[in-house]
Amino acid sequence: MRVLGIDPGTAICGFGVVERVGSRLLPLHYGVLTTEPSMAMPDRLTVLYRGLTDLIREYQPDRVGVEELFFNKNVTTAMTVSQARGVILLAARLAEVPVSEYTPLEVKQGVVGYGRATKHQVTEMTKRLLGIREAIRPDDAADALAIAICTLLRERGGGYDRLSSR
Amino acid sequence: MRVLGIDPGTAICGFGVVERVGSRLLPLHYGVLTTEPSMAMPDRLTVLYRGLTDLIREYQPDRVGVEELFFNKNVTTAMTVSQARGVILLAARLAEVPVSEYTPLEVKQGVVGYGRATKHQVTEMTKRLLGIREAIRPDDAADALAIAICTLLRERGGGYDRLSSR
Repeated sequence: MRVLGIDPGTAICGFGVVERVGSRLLPLHYGVLTTEPSMAMPDRLTVLYRGLTDLIREYQPDRVGVEELFFNKNVTTAMTVSQARGVILLAARLAEVPVSEYTPLEVKQGVVGYGRATKHQVTEMTKRLLGIREAIRPDDAADALAIAICTLLRERGGGYDRLSSR
Repeated sequence: MRVLGIDPGTAICGFGVVERVGSRLLPLHYGVLTTEPSMAMPDRLTVLYRGLTDLIREYQPDRVGVEELFFNKNVTTAMTVSQARGVILLAARLAEVPVSEYTPLEVKQGVVGYGRATKHQVTEMTKRLLGIREAIRPDDAADALAIAICTLLRERGGGYDRLSSR
């Protein structure tokens, strides 16, 4: 099974493609899509849409995993990220790839087995599970890989329990 | 000049097509796109995307006008509406139609000439400017027509001053 994880954003949108082969998790590709703040919003959303559509066409994921947003302070940021998120959900649906959505808490639980894990712990566990030795840059790509891992483990069913019993 | 006005929403998305012919404003079509809350979000966004794309293809607007969102209380609603808004901006851009965005204040100023106008005043002025005698139902369609009027008057330049000097 192959999953495309997405960390939604308008300026920087992280992505990570992870494949499960037996008990191994293989990172096939990861990085970020970026748009310039000077561009008009419809243009920025189009860059994201086309970039994601290209990724889906190239890597043919079985599922797309997207982080859910929970904001309680900066509503303007929340609304901007949500616009990007709408385009991401649309791109997956038009490509006929099913979508799973996970809260940040679920991603932490899925990857580290502990919902209050720090960002550093999540990144370290992401690297370990994927066999990546170098630093994953930028953070948005690491977040997207964590979401992909969470999606794969959840889809497997037992994966979550296995990790949470560490 | 012909404008498609959009009042963004996920459950109900209002639309209104208005054409300016000389000094007259003609309502060509208005109504709402609706999606069921029981549907998955990617499916709902796809219904909106296809509906808007069909409207643009059929009515060939010169410009799309979309209301900007300003929320400070219900962040969850703001994020859901923003997802729909992202899809609307994308649909317009992919159809190569330029987009204008207006705040609720600008729409009130544009239509009624007074930024603190009531919703009732905006709807009544919308009906008068468009020569519509019956009630415009639902409210979302009336809001979309108001946005279309605002877009047309702003694009004309003098239109806004004319109305605001009433």
